[in-house]
Amino acid sequence: MTNKTRVNTPCDDRCPVRASLTLLSGKWTLMILFQINENVVRYGELKRAVTGISEKMLIQELNMLVENKLVSKKVYQQIPPKVEYRLTKLGLKTLPIVDKLAEFGLENLV
Amino acid sequence: MTNKTRVNTPCDDRCPVRASLTLLSGKWTLMILFQINENVVRYGELKRAVTGISEKMLIQELNMLVENKLVSKKVYQQIPPKVEYRLTKLGLKTLPIVDKLAEFGLENLV
Repeated sequence: MTNKTRVNTPCDDRCPVRASLTLLSGKWTLMILFQINENVVRYGELKRAVTGISEKMLIQELNMLVENKLVSKKVYQQIPPKVEYRLTKLGLKTLPIVDKLAEFGLENLV
Repeated sequence: MTNKTRVNTPCDDRCPVRASLTLLSGKWTLMILFQINENVVRYGELKRAVTGISEKMLIQELNMLVENKLVSKKVYQQIPPKVEYRLTKLGLKTLPIVDKLAEFGLENLV
């Protein structure tokens, strides 16, 4: 490799990395997607699984994920109410990103 | 797949995804790593490549990346001064994450 300075195409609004990060770069977003994974997960389970997240932040993140069509929410009309989350088809496509984050963390950080 | 609710191991301090995100989840972090990539990049080039980032934020992010040993900085003592950045061995290992972000963005968002 030469010492030539060279740079990728500018990372503007059409940049796919920027587009993905706009959707996924919330502090907890990818961690929540990782925890839901290929499962059907109840709200309480998720709260326990993502340690350190506040109730307010988890609800906010989940609403954002549902709005962005990465997660679907199913509410059972019963007492006490039951709420389940799972990844949508689009949400499942983020799992390869999460896998690479896990790989990097395992090999270099934990 | 059954409708059984199941969840991953809790994402606590030893979780590799959390560890990676602690290092990489800044709003601009992965975009800067993507732009440097396998190249040697001067500060001015980076500023132009990551459109929308403020001078203050770019300097702050670069200092953080250098501190976390993801990026190395070389200052040439000349007038005007020349500053070059490249990914370290550890930084290069984040590129598979960036690749997956690019793939997701390309296929689903842009």
